[in-house]
Amino acid sequence: MVQPYSDKQIKLFSLNGNHAIAEKISKAAGIPLGKVSSRQFSDGEIQINIEESVRGVDVYIIQSTSFPVNDHLWELLIMVDACVRASANSVTVVMPYFGYARQDRTAAPREPITAKLVANMLVKAGVSRVVTLDLHAVQVQGFFDIPVDNLFTVPLFAEYYAKKGLCGENVVIVSPKNSGIKRARGLAESLNTPIAIIDYAQDDSERSEGYIIGDVTGKKAILIDDMLNTGRTFSEAAKIVKKNGATEIYAVASHGLFAGIAADLLDAVPIKEILVTDSVASKERLPKNITFVSASELIADAIIRIHERRPVSPLFDATVDLDIK
Amino acid sequence: MVQPYSDKQIKLFSLNGNHAIAEKISKAAGIPLGKVSSRQFSDGEIQINIEESVRGVDVYIIQSTSFPVNDHLWELLIMVDACVRASANSVTVVMPYFGYARQDRTAAPREPITAKLVANMLVKAGVSRVVTLDLHAVQVQGFFDIPVDNLFTVPLFAEYYAKKGLCGENVVIVSPKNSGIKRARGLAESLNTPIAIIDYAQDDSERSEGYIIGDVTGKKAILIDDMLNTGRTFSEAAKIVKKNGATEIYAVASHGLFAGIAADLLDAVPIKEILVTDSVASKERLPKNITFVSASELIADAIIRIHERRPVSPLFDATVDLDIK
Amino acid sequence: MVQPYSDKQIKLFSLNGNHAIAEKISKAAGIPLGKVSSRQFSDGEIQINIEESVRGVDVYIIQSTSFPVNDHLWELLIMVDACVRASANSVTVVMPYFGYARQDRTAAPREPITAKLVANMLVKAGVSRVVTLDLHAVQVQGFFDIPVDNLFTVPLFAEYYAKKGLCGENVVIVSPKNSGIKRARGLAESLNTPIAIIDYAQDDSERSEGYIIGDVTGKKAILIDDMLNTGRTFSEAAKIVKKNGATEIYAVASHGLFAGIAADLLDAVPIKEILVTDSVASKERLPKNITFVSASELIADAIIRIHERRPVSPLFDATVDLDIK
Amino acid sequence: MVQPYSDKQIKLFSLNGNHAIAEKISKAAGIPLGKVSSRQFSDGEIQINIEESVRGVDVYIIQSTSFPVNDHLWELLIMVDACVRASANSVTVVMPYFGYARQDRTAAPREPITAKLVANMLVKAGVSRVVTLDLHAVQVQGFFDIPVDNLFTVPLFAEYYAKKGLCGENVVIVSPKNSGIKRARGLAESLNTPIAIIDYAQDDSERSEGYIIGDVTGKKAILIDDMLNTGRTFSEAAKIVKKNGATEIYAVASHGLFAGIAADLLDAVPIKEILVTDSVASKERLPKNITFVSASELIADAIIRIHERRPVSPLFDATVDLDIK
Amino acid sequence: MVQPYSDKQIKLFSLNGNHAIAEKISKAAGIPLGKVSSRQFSDGEIQINIEESVRGVDVYIIQSTSFPVNDHLWELLIMVDACVRASANSVTVVMPYFGYARQDRTAAPREPITAKLVANMLVKAGVSRVVTLDLHAVQVQGFFDIPVDNLFTVPLFAEYYAKKGLCGENVVIVSPKNSGIKRARGLAESLNTPIAIIDYAQDDSERSEGYIIGDVTGKKAILIDDMLNTGRTFSEAAKIVKKNGATEIYAVASHGLFAGIAADLLDAVPIKEILVTDSVASKERLPKNITFVSASELIADAIIRIHERRPVSPLFDATVDLDIK
Amino acid sequence: MVQPYSDKQIKLFSLNGNHAIAEKISKAAGIPLGKVSSRQFSDGEIQINIEESVRGVDVYIIQSTSFPVNDHLWELLIMVDACVRASANSVTVVMPYFGYARQDRTAAPREPITAKLVANMLVKAGVSRVVTLDLHAVQVQGFFDIPVDNLFTVPLFAEYYAKKGLCGENVVIVSPKNSGIKRARGLAESLNTPIAIIDYAQDDSERSEGYIIGDVTGKKAILIDDMLNTGRTFSEAAKIVKKNGATEIYAVASHGLFAGIAADLLDAVPIKEILVTDSVASKERLPKNITFVSASELIADAIIRIHERRPVSPLFDATVDLDIK
Repeated sequence: MVQPYSDKQIKLFSLNGNHAIAEKISKAAGIPLGKVSSRQFSDGEIQINIEESVRGVDVYIIQSTSFPVNDHLWELLIMVDACVRASANSVTVVMPYFGYARQDRTAAPREPITAKLVANMLVKAGVSRVVTLDLHAVQVQGFFDIPVDNLFTVPLFAEYYAKKGLCGENVVIVSPKNSGIKRARGLAESLNTPIAIIDYAQDDSERSEGYIIGDVTGKKAILIDDMLNTGRTFSEAAKIVKKNGATEIYAVASHGLFAGIAADLLDAVPIKEILVTDSVASKERLPKNITFVSASELIADAIIRIHERRPVSPLFDATVDLDIK
Repeated sequence: MVQPYSDKQIKLFSLNGNHAIAEKISKAAGIPLGKVSSRQFSDGEIQINIEESVRGVDVYIIQSTSFPVNDHLWELLIMVDACVRASANSVTVVMPYFGYARQDRTAAPREPITAKLVANMLVKAGVSRVVTLDLHAVQVQGFFDIPVDNLFTVPLFAEYYAKKGLCGENVVIVSPKNSGIKRARGLAESLNTPIAIIDYAQDDSERSEGYIIGDVTGKKAILIDDMLNTGRTFSEAAKIVKKNGATEIYAVASHGLFAGIAADLLDAVPIKEILVTDSVASKERLPKNITFVSASELIADAIIRIHERRPVSPLFDATVDLDIK
Repeated sequence: MVQPYSDKQIKLFSLNGNHAIAEKISKAAGIPLGKVSSRQFSDGEIQINIEESVRGVDVYIIQSTSFPVNDHLWELLIMVDACVRASANSVTVVMPYFGYARQDRTAAPREPITAKLVANMLVKAGVSRVVTLDLHAVQVQGFFDIPVDNLFTVPLFAEYYAKKGLCGENVVIVSPKNSGIKRARGLAESLNTPIAIIDYAQDDSERSEGYIIGDVTGKKAILIDDMLNTGRTFSEAAKIVKKNGATEIYAVASHGLFAGIAADLLDAVPIKEILVTDSVASKERLPKNITFVSASELIADAIIRIHERRPVSPLFDATVDLDIK
Repeated sequence: MVQPYSDKQIKLFSLNGNHAIAEKISKAAGIPLGKVSSRQFSDGEIQINIEESVRGVDVYIIQSTSFPVNDHLWELLIMVDACVRASANSVTVVMPYFGYARQDRTAAPREPITAKLVANMLVKAGVSRVVTLDLHAVQVQGFFDIPVDNLFTVPLFAEYYAKKGLCGENVVIVSPKNSGIKRARGLAESLNTPIAIIDYAQDDSERSEGYIIGDVTGKKAILIDDMLNTGRTFSEAAKIVKKNGATEIYAVASHGLFAGIAADLLDAVPIKEILVTDSVASKERLPKNITFVSASELIADAIIRIHERRPVSPLFDATVDLDIK
Repeated sequence: MVQPYSDKQIKLFSLNGNHAIAEKISKAAGIPLGKVSSRQFSDGEIQINIEESVRGVDVYIIQSTSFPVNDHLWELLIMVDACVRASANSVTVVMPYFGYARQDRTAAPREPITAKLVANMLVKAGVSRVVTLDLHAVQVQGFFDIPVDNLFTVPLFAEYYAKKGLCGENVVIVSPKNSGIKRARGLAESLNTPIAIIDYAQDDSERSEGYIIGDVTGKKAILIDDMLNTGRTFSEAAKIVKKNGATEIYAVASHGLFAGIAADLLDAVPIKEILVTDSVASKERLPKNITFVSASELIADAIIRIHERRPVSPLFDATVDLDIK
Repeated sequence: MVQPYSDKQIKLFSLNGNHAIAEKISKAAGIPLGKVSSRQFSDGEIQINIEESVRGVDVYIIQSTSFPVNDHLWELLIMVDACVRASANSVTVVMPYFGYARQDRTAAPREPITAKLVANMLVKAGVSRVVTLDLHAVQVQGFFDIPVDNLFTVPLFAEYYAKKGLCGENVVIVSPKNSGIKRARGLAESLNTPIAIIDYAQDDSERSEGYIIGDVTGKKAILIDDMLNTGRTFSEAAKIVKKNGATEIYAVASHGLFAGIAADLLDAVPIKEILVTDSVASKERLPKNITFVSASELIADAIIRIHERRPVSPLFDATVDLDIK
């Protein structure tokens, strides 16, 4: 059992994005969640009242900006405004899931870069620091000029699979699309496995005819992606990997959104286990073979280290003990 | 029939807040609406693509930020970002209804000032100018350092009532709450009538026991407010005015939101006619005796004047011709 | 007798706006006023030299920006610049009277919003926080993105009148113009009285023919406004209230400027007592029946709470003990 | 006679700092002065109303920020705010005299740098460009990041003296203090004369015992400085130069403030002629042998060149024709 | 022969980064290069003087920030400062090569994000727009809030190879490292070929044992990367591809830096042709089989389109005519 | 021997500009230099990695921005970016030599103000404070809005010469150019000597025919300047002073750059001793009669005072004990 944290200069607050992870972070850190009321009126407007003093306090606001992302973002911005006007000493936004992160470039002419817009809005509202988990692209850190701690999920996953014995040459890490190869490379290094890639002849928008680059025959394949949203990417990849002779198929993603019919798609393909963190509190139906690994201790550890001015960098190291092999 | 506007340096775009008024503004101005696709994904994220060049163009984006306000605000911010990155010469936001405008002060300790936050977000996203209609408090103009044209609805309403002969000493303009007296005063001056006020012994949040200050006995009463949201304010006021001897009751508001059971409340009290502008495209049921006066020509006129660098100030004058009496 | 305040990290400085209240605040807080020389040269330029170190210190500068407002504002801005360059840890501006606060909107086309300009200038010069007293419009708080503590005077006045027995149904709080009704409502709630309003058929600029809305006959009337400047508003109101049968007339305002012939106007009408705070050090002749209630303890309390990171919100509560009735 | 300037996109306005030069600039440029009302209330607050449209216009505001400098600066800032909110295309501030320019460094610990503060305030208020005349230190240009055109007065003075035959080896240009040597050097180059310097053993604040470095014996001496304020610098210098054998003494300064008893001091020393520009509209008594050279044509020329996007640099060239010798 | 461009509102300037491409762009656009002197003093400081007026002009500064990158960046920033102070209407920076673009994320704890720093410095100096060529990561566009036109080189390369008949199933596009797969995918789509990837078991810094994922046996392989710097990546890849049975090897990169012994490394491996654009004016020895395709017409076209407010988007389309197959 | 400084909240880092003075400052302050790796790649790009945590720490970065100034400035900016992103509490830049300081004004049309540009870049990168030594012009302090401590070298030099008996009427302080007279005046006051000036008939760029203003005959002359760069100014001055009868010649400058053939020029003239501080780590050949006085203790003292929130002002006082005469 974690001791109550004695420093009263720090307060945690949870908004409505993901109360479950907020409570786990609070418990892991030994810091109770502060009182805040956040109501939504009949016209959709959100009203926030912080019900305890934050004057001179280092405030950490825990908010996953998943569905409904626009409500969650405004709730976050309004809370930041309230904290700044109420004389908080600093305002750290803890976003286990960072919505709009995929809109990080102008993919077509006259498109916005919404991830940068989100960054600008947060900073202008008064955010002093961001803690997040496995950003879609690491370059998004550079969308901010304030400190951003982008915690990694690969060590969590590597530890999980290593314990299950899923490592070495009989396993292959598969990136289900050509843009995610760095993440596959990272897990492969921790588990001492080769990698493979699913490539599509056409661009994401109207893709078809996926095929595999690399060798999965006779191996246990772990599909890895950052977001599990519609389930389509994993579903397609599972079929291709199966067709190419993989013996068992696993899938892992940092953020489990499970939008729309994702569960149906995933339940229809031979994926043995789907592993995600608890960064998103999805209200959708979940696939049957889902497993959660909590990111709450990692995040709680980061919060305490930040508050105590100790380095966060040790949290970036893979701590997988592969002796179990 | 309005001539097509010949200057190609100006483009109008409509987002999803209120397409009906956008089309009327477009028609009144003689400028077609530009092509823009705005989709919402299954995870709630909005993706915008402007489907014609805006390079070097003065862009006017028409968006009412009514329900669902958070979606409409993000759609607006994302569109602004897209316009700026696509090299628009200027970006004017036309908001017939300005959401969150009531949150213009810290009513209780540790509350945000969300109207200022909205202003800051718009400016940071790249807005060059705002055109809006009857702001809840005129001080909100000062939340911006860019030009804000706050068009008035009182001249529209005064013209309407004057044509109906609702003016002079037999009529009384009633502010249904003590904070709206300035608006009542304005309409009263145009219609040459006295005013009265409904006061509540307690603050807005838990108000009870309204009573009237001023004299309505034997007069036709026009209740005036800026927003008609839940209908409760007008419903209460109508009962009080009735009890105090008003012969006929009218109600007028700039913005008709009609949230929740507003129509039920309003249909249950003896208001002869409810007048609102078309600033809000409410999806709720409307009360039976509703009448709309369109603000689209006023707004179109403002847009053309701004674009042609002609003064907007003539639009602020009451143009009521009381000779019809 | 107040104990000397032991924390040396805080320093108070008084500029030339209102030395009297600065000394009272200093005494109430137990913090001596720091040494600063502020000279004005023959060409009108102000030169400031801070004569003790402020490096790393939380500086509180007490300055009422009343007449001559432009000199007092520049003196304040120059002092802020000096503090920032001299490495103060933070610079809080304590403005018992906030000049230009009435210019908070564009009342006519092509007018400035000078209150916002003042806010922008203060922030750009380096101010970290503002403490002020009864702003003309609460929305002015939103002109800033830094914390603003707007202290209320109504509790001070309510306590004063309650002690005199001026409360209950025999008393009526009168707003001498239709824009000040919120302030009247506040005092009325504390004193359990009804309210009334003086209305003018024309706008403020060329008003005439004031008349009363509500009932004052046979009651003791308390006129309330935020600023007592030329005395004309109270003088007119007193006549109207008298004519309508009020038995005794009191007047109360947060800020007593008494510009020009205010004292003459006020001495000529049957106001029994004029109550103001000491926020302004007026050099004009004062009316005969003037009474001051000091805001210095309230301000000193706020300063100490801010410095000790304790909530300021308790100061906003009415603390009137109505048992004396 | 100057032709009326035909481009309606430009408007000139004069505030209360120096109407005389504004009218001369207006006449020289062929552009009438726009209508603006600027009133000062009994409490010292300034209210500005621009009485003609400035929407889309390039506005030039002519304001010398001499005594009372704080009023003139606020009047200027308020006018800038009004122009920006009224949608001016650009706002150029024309300051024939730039107040507070001497406070350009921290001469003692914990002093402000008020000239930089003034620059910051102007830019924050919305100024797009500054036109000024002979800044006290050229480095003040770098206090701005917007374009600053600092017009030179030395060519005006050189032309004047050359016409009088005051040039060549029989003349000596004398800097009356050691910090002004660059200005003396500039005039000397135009007039082909040597230079000399008055030095003081102690610093400016408590100086005494001035003595001359260089040779003035038997020469006509022209004392040159940027500001003629209290008259003390020229008065002392004239005595020293006289004692060292100068045959005739002239004095020239860009800005004639003549504060306090300047006229008395100057009338008491044997200076044959005091030459200044009309940058300052001094209300003080002027010395008897004063001569004005107008900077209005130079400024008008700069305004027209800026507006027509033609280079201003030719105005910096000395255009003295020394053939008249 | 290109006609001289008639609009005098646009001026091009070349700094010392890559005069050759600047001259080609100038010729292709029909706009002569403006006169600017840029000297470097013995202490390394750069002094710039623009030798013709830029007042009101849209300035385009052509500067490749390749070796010596720090000198070229400061030269660029200083030129931007000079343009802004000289009243340029807008300042577009044309960077055929964008130095420091690879430092786009914190690869290790406590690392800077230098690409973002460069973006911030450019914007703060006064840049209005950036035109660049094949950014290392497209997310770098989001490091700016001003418009960035990132021109693509893949269409240039696709056209070149298509003309040579290097397309279809007998060809394979190879990404020589796992992070560049998107670029390979793009070229493959234009040329209708499959792709392959070189993967390394360890991270970039200490990589070893590269191996191929995908099939190159019996095919002509085109290695593609954005930067050809030390030559090591291509040299290693060529060996691996050769070993895996490729029949011919080509290499293509957007930016040819050829630092250190790159030419030696590349001459030692069986690459038939190395194709690069002229974005970098390398002073190093070039490999023997080098071919240049000029990006100057593409850039000139973009400049003219931007200046004429025509869409740049058509330049992003692949215009390859594959009929030649 | 200095005690190790016990406060762990402060860290010093040295970049590559001047390691020697950084080590001396470190020793004088009792604070070890932190670990940072700064590499320059073959393409000239600098990569920095801070090798110990700076989270919550007050960082002081010691960097002289002398030759190669552009590399040293980028190294500094990149280090600042790394510190900010790594959550340093504050970042103070200690610049014993501030490069580009002479470019502090637009000396000719369309010139940049590079010193202001440098200031803007530092602030935008995230610098909280600057400590520097004898700025070329004190107005450069005003280029910043953050605190700048500009330490003076004159007290160091005065103490040195006073100890040697070089003071009083037999000595004359000579400014070798007319713009440096303030510095000469300062040393003269400390040493109780007269001053003289070398003047040139033409401007700096093409100067010729220098001559002396003031009297050096039979005196020991000390030439003083802020920068000793090419040696030409001192060399010319020495010849002129010699010709005018000085008996001994000394030269002193705050910053010894010794660019190009400076040593040759200086060795060829009869200067008895050249005194400079160690602010610059010149890699050029030094003149034979060079003497260094270290500024490291002065800087170390300033750092400790700043960190302990004690006034820095005592360091500005001349502490010369002239009793030794």
